Amino acid sequence: MTQVTSAANPLRDAQDRRLPRIAGPSGLVIFGVTGDLSRKKLMPAVYDLANRGLLPPGFSLIGFARRDWEDQDFCQVVHDSVKQYARTPFREEVWRQLGEGMRFVPGVFDDDDAFRSLKATIEDLDKTRGTGGNFAFYLSVPPKFFPTVLQQLKKHGLTDAPEGSWRRAVIEKPFGHDLASAQELNQVVHRVFRQSDVFRIDHYLGKETVQNILALRFANTMFEPLWNRSYVDHVQITMAEDIGIGGRAGYYDGIGAARDVIQNHLLQLLALTAMEEPSSFDAKALVTEKLKVLNAVRLPKDLGRYTVRGQYQAGWQGGRRVPGYLEEEGIDPASRTDTYAAIKLEIDNRRWAGVPFYLRTGKRLGRRVTEIAVVFQRAPYSPFDATDTRELGQNALVIRVQPDEGVTIRFGSKVPGTSMEIRDVTMDFAYGESFTESSPEAYERLILDVLLGDANLFPRHQEVERSWEILDPVEEYWEAHGRPEPYTAGTWGPQAADEMLARDGRSWRRP
Amino acid sequence: MTQVTSAANPLRDAQDRRLPRIAGPSGLVIFGVTGDLSRKKLMPAVYDLANRGLLPPGFSLIGFARRDWEDQDFCQVVHDSVKQYARTPFREEVWRQLGEGMRFVPGVFDDDDAFRSLKATIEDLDKTRGTGGNFAFYLSVPPKFFPTVLQQLKKHGLTDAPEGSWRRAVIEKPFGHDLASAQELNQVVHRVFRQSDVFRIDHYLGKETVQNILALRFANTMFEPLWNRSYVDHVQITMAEDIGIGGRAGYYDGIGAARDVIQNHLLQLLALTAMEEPSSFDAKALVTEKLKVLNAVRLPKDLGRYTVRGQYQAGWQGGRRVPGYLEEEGIDPASRTDTYAAIKLEIDNRRWAGVPFYLRTGKRLGRRVTEIAVVFQRAPYSPFDATDTRELGQNALVIRVQPDEGVTIRFGSKVPGTSMEIRDVTMDFAYGESFTESSPEAYERLILDVLLGDANLFPRHQEVERSWEILDPVEEYWEAHGRPEPYTAGTWGPQAADEMLARDGRSWRRP
Repeated sequence: MTQVTSAANPLRDAQDRRLPRIAGPSGLVIFGVTGDLSRKKLMPAVYDLANRGLLPPGFSLIGFARRDWEDQDFCQVVHDSVKQYARTPFREEVWRQLGEGMRFVPGVFDDDDAFRSLKATIEDLDKTRGTGGNFAFYLSVPPKFFPTVLQQLKKHGLTDAPEGSWRRAVIEKPFGHDLASAQELNQVVHRVFRQSDVFRIDHYLGKETVQNILALRFANTMFEPLWNRSYVDHVQITMAEDIGIGGRAGYYDGIGAARDVIQNHLLQLLALTAMEEPSSFDAKALVTEKLKVLNAVRLPKDLGRYTVRGQYQAGWQGGRRVPGYLEEEGIDPASRTDTYAAIKLEIDNRRWAGVPFYLRTGKRLGRRVTEIAVVFQRAPYSPFDATDTRELGQNALVIRVQPDEGVTIRFGSKVPGTSMEIRDVTMDFAYGESFTESSPEAYERLILDVLLGDANLFPRHQEVERSWEILDPVEEYWEAHGRPEPYTAGTWGPQAADEMLARDGRSWRRP
Repeated sequence: MTQVTSAANPLRDAQDRRLPRIAGPSGLVIFGVTGDLSRKKLMPAVYDLANRGLLPPGFSLIGFARRDWEDQDFCQVVHDSVKQYARTPFREEVWRQLGEGMRFVPGVFDDDDAFRSLKATIEDLDKTRGTGGNFAFYLSVPPKFFPTVLQQLKKHGLTDAPEGSWRRAVIEKPFGHDLASAQELNQVVHRVFRQSDVFRIDHYLGKETVQNILALRFANTMFEPLWNRSYVDHVQITMAEDIGIGGRAGYYDGIGAARDVIQNHLLQLLALTAMEEPSSFDAKALVTEKLKVLNAVRLPKDLGRYTVRGQYQAGWQGGRRVPGYLEEEGIDPASRTDTYAAIKLEIDNRRWAGVPFYLRTGKRLGRRVTEIAVVFQRAPYSPFDATDTRELGQNALVIRVQPDEGVTIRFGSKVPGTSMEIRDVTMDFAYGESFTESSPEAYERLILDVLLGDANLFPRHQEVERSWEILDPVEEYWEAHGRPEPYTAGTWGPQAADEMLARDGRSWRRP
């Protein structure tokens, strides 16, 4: 039995700052291990972490699913997934060590024998691979199974960590579909795990560019003085997808774009963009600030004018004819589900009062892009001739979350020539060009954080509930009023969305 | 006789903003037309302006010099200069039209006949080419000849513009070598020309990037809020040359780097960087603001600690052994002339109190670069671990005047990876990449401005005198104390310059 002891977070040690953060002895149990997420994201992330030397040598991975598999069958599935999806090169020696710690427990969620077997497997791994009793349970299953799985874990003593070790739960969205269901879900989870042992995955928070919002704002001097109502005209947060619903009809229909994206990803991006400086980057200090700003978020009174939902119709995308939402396989032809959603939010605090935050998301839009655009006011007075600045837009700072991760600043510059004509130009910082280090996948970061017990990048239950509280009135309004506006696939959403901003004298960026 | 009538400044006409600024009927007389400046800069600039259609069809160029030339000899000299140095392609039809307006007047400056002949030539051009009595006299001659030339112009009635037309004088630095001589020179000039008809060339002000300082600061919202003592730690203004004194020994020795560069170029850059917003871009409003800030400039008390001069010694540059200043041809081996000068200045006003401006210039430095670096303070508090931000410098905004014209912002960004390490990155705007328009040469812009009577980019006599007033105590201190510090050619100047900043807890940028 080999074992490398590592501090929980060696970074805290000023002498050793170059040491990467390495997980201590531990194992990961994945429920729903045969699912897409597990195969495309979790398994490759585990391998990539191992390959980067960030997992302990005895790290173990247990799959739990309703399959008639032996350990080696599971191992083969992980192997194929890693070969196909891992970010880092395949190395036989890394794989061999990782593979030795793979176990499979077959069973359904209400099967006591299966959970007894899971318990035995864990105890065996503690003995043979030194996992030290530290296990994270990743519930990669539909939320309706959460109660059963959690109760089974509790019933079989799997949530009781031995002295000095830990047990943690990882759950994936959707965290409910409204405030009531989210509260219920949180109660179910917290009956079994302590709040601090529950890790809610919003994979957007694992993205480098999202974490860079914090670095950009608080490690620098030159942005924060501008980051308020004195200088900012408005903020646009966009997550646009070019794809349709693909195979997700069963999940997506009845949920829609606002619940699927705005409630979690976009409100989290809003929180990071708008929050005050936390006193430290402890999870607790962070959640305090995020929650504070989310609590200050207010919907406009007139939801008919300041929210827009859309549903894509057949169109052309990437030179290919694509079907409308109602023609997608598995979709009720009378569905009123939104595949596009845009809302205007105000933030009632000293920093942001009067600065609208416009959030939008949609499928089958012009192109795939996620960005936060902080658009500044026009200069209060311009000593230049109006004719010389006619083509000058507003200054903007754009955080490009994906793709082409980076930061762009748009500002006015003199056009070369013998007059004082001023035109917009951009200056650009691209992650890919500035760093030789390649960015870890969000799931690598997040799984490692779970094993380290570092909760910075995980929304707390209060944030989830508050986000539903913000969104619920919109969903209720939509429920009570008509249908989504149609928009053609491949465009930038329904006309009503443009009109919504035009009403405020503004327009959406065409990213 | 063809003639295109053009408004003095068509840009003022909002209906016609795309019309370039075109000079009205006029001619240019160059004294000292056989000199280097004339051949390398002025002649090509005149051709480039004509080629861009910015000169009137009847535009005429008169050369005056002590040469036994006919018009066609002069024409040939201009032709060769244009072929060799013009920025825009040679076009036969442009050249033909321009060439028809070329005249040469041979003579020395105290020769009355020559000035009578000059007068006759001008009158003839008014009749045959429609120059309309509008002439600019470009004194591309050493300042010691200014009194004679100016008096001759006056004596022969050349400074008296006919009703509705104009006569202007263009003079080149050096505008004196101290306050007293500058005042004397200005008196000589103003005895003959009205202040508003005198155009002092500081070719730095003709550079696109220098004019862009104004656009950057005042056409945008996001820089000006940071542009003050609350956020700026200090400013560094650098003009570094890699060349030695070349053939300029006669002029340079006894003058030195501070008089040659700091008094004019660097103090003008300081003025544009530090001044308040002018109410408009009229020459008058501009000079008011520049003068206001120059009047607030203060030298530190201890000139021994906060000024540094250097003299280059033999070294290697560009893989080539180069001689020291004292070994250059034509230099007194005991010369105490500074080829490097650095000074610290304070600005006594509400915006800049306590923010030092460090100016430096030198020959035979590491590479050729002119830049203005606004270096911001460190964040007052960092919520990040000190260990994570150890490699984080201060935010900076750098205006690259030449070469690689553009703007760079240096800020901290998260290093990709699973920790919150933050490192400096840069974002960049490059003129060359953002505009298809190529930048006119400074002399194109400035000659056109003279013909248009647009004095924005020309320092007024008060600025020149105030700049000497700032520099004089430094020169006097140096005169009274020792010799320049030696530095090796190809390095970044004497060690004392580094010590000067180190004393303030700062360091020079290595651009």
